[in-house]
Amino acid sequence: MSLLIVGTMAFDSIETPYGKVEMVIGGACTYASWSASYLTDKINMVSIVGGDFPEDEMETLNKRGASSEGVEIVKDKKSFFWAGKYHDNMNSRDTLVTDLNVLADFDPVLPDSYKNSEFVLLGNLTPEVQIKVMDQMTTKPKVIALDTMNFWMDIAMDTLKQAIARVDILTINDEEARQLSGEYSLVTAADKILEMGPKALIIKKGEHGALLFYGDKKFYAPALPIAVVKDPTGAGDTFAGGFMGYLDKSGELSYENLKRAMIYGSTMASFCVEEFSLEKIQALTDEEITKRLGQFKELTQFDL
Amino acid sequence: MSLLIVGTMAFDSIETPYGKVEMVIGGACTYASWSASYLTDKINMVSIVGGDFPEDEMETLNKRGASSEGVEIVKDKKSFFWAGKYHDNMNSRDTLVTDLNVLADFDPVLPDSYKNSEFVLLGNLTPEVQIKVMDQMTTKPKVIALDTMNFWMDIAMDTLKQAIARVDILTINDEEARQLSGEYSLVTAADKILEMGPKALIIKKGEHGALLFYGDKKFYAPALPIAVVKDPTGAGDTFAGGFMGYLDKSGELSYENLKRAMIYGSTMASFCVEEFSLEKIQALTDEEITKRLGQFKELTQFDL
Repeated sequence: MSLLIVGTMAFDSIETPYGKVEMVIGGACTYASWSASYLTDKINMVSIVGGDFPEDEMETLNKRGASSEGVEIVKDKKSFFWAGKYHDNMNSRDTLVTDLNVLADFDPVLPDSYKNSEFVLLGNLTPEVQIKVMDQMTTKPKVIALDTMNFWMDIAMDTLKQAIARVDILTINDEEARQLSGEYSLVTAADKILEMGPKALIIKKGEHGALLFYGDKKFYAPALPIAVVKDPTGAGDTFAGGFMGYLDKSGELSYENLKRAMIYGSTMASFCVEEFSLEKIQALTDEEITKRLGQFKELTQFDL
Repeated sequence: MSLLIVGTMAFDSIETPYGKVEMVIGGACTYASWSASYLTDKINMVSIVGGDFPEDEMETLNKRGASSEGVEIVKDKKSFFWAGKYHDNMNSRDTLVTDLNVLADFDPVLPDSYKNSEFVLLGNLTPEVQIKVMDQMTTKPKVIALDTMNFWMDIAMDTLKQAIARVDILTINDEEARQLSGEYSLVTAADKILEMGPKALIIKKGEHGALLFYGDKKFYAPALPIAVVKDPTGAGDTFAGGFMGYLDKSGELSYENLKRAMIYGSTMASFCVEEFSLEKIQALTDEEITKRLGQFKELTQFDL
């Protein structure tokens, strides 16, 4: 199979109670591709970077099976930059800087070799860009997942709903599910959102895990309790990359497999938050992943 | 086996976005006893009420196997009264009235028939009262569980720690675990709290479920996503009653059984919040409970 991932590749400056890093590599496409690369080996990245994006970072991803043929490099401009500071509880953060730079001109053109990707992950971007990517697929993908945020609900709800109507899986957080549906109860919100088109809704609840709604079925993947969460940046993208990477590897779309994908996504995200930036998820071993999957089993499984 | 439950029996006036009820029956001992009564049939209640507490409420509990021999009735005084209003998100509430009434004089004297109860649930009360109850046991109970809150940490931390040192299981919420341990990370907080004496710590996370820490083991019982949460009052006590009721019924203290008890407690709590006051948990059938246990299995179980 093959997994197309559209999203930002960027620089981040991040401050948390555990420290501060400046101009480190970030971006949804980067986090999701790294995460997926442990599970599948045919990743088609679609993004845009400036001349300042390190070539060796791209090459490392290439070596892990992530093609950058769809990553536009604008030599005389800068990459997208985000700076943020997390509050003491790590559940909220202030955005200090958002420099769109090259992202302002992002108009993705898919290489021909990408156009029949079976799995598609549309990272959080303008809904117009997400639709443009779907429009360029020549073969109907087996699964399209879309990630978005409240910002697009505020300024482009109609276009966003058009995009959502075309995807199989939507990933948003609990507040966004409430905003999108106008319902406070997550169960009622999920019912309404599934009527908008997607077959599945994943509600991300940060340190509390993630909920999968699929028809009238519900599955809860808790977050693994972590002793020290150093930096939550990218955890949602790492979850999405692990989730889609697992689906792409297995190629199977049963509900049982979606549940397994939730656990793989949560496993990858649990590593992400343990160190700043990509530090931890750039250096994992299969043994570590297998061990952590076992911890998820221990955390959740019981016999009645 | 037999389960001793100490706690308030009270009147509540409750307002939530779904409605308002005045002077309904509440109290930790009431909720916990009702919950436990579906799982075990030998409950020893210890509480204090005024002459205004309805006799038929007590009789209904008696018929379900909950002895009120240890409930002191002060005929010329009023029962404990609490009034609260929940915010729109149901996760926080304002206390409008707390009239201690008879509770100000609560000095529990255990009937002889209670003193060899194998399981003991010390509901949220002054740590002095919790200690007095433990002091009166003539046979060492198999399990003592203690529930408490930030209020006692603020005004009686030393006595509270003496009580905690003597119990097997402590149940508190996430903020209280942080306050008690001085640690933000729940994993580190749990390590410190388990060093204070208890063998197990249950961290209640409201709509996000509950975490069991036992040695270096962790188990997560999510809350079942409920379409309409009408009134969260008593959910924690209902959880505790279900948890201890299951342990008392089975009499087995293995880790596997503690996990099952977590699921039984969560199941009972999921009913509690669906209606105001005790309305739902006074009218359950075994079939409803069995069905909901199955829903918890569906919500959490997967194969890797």
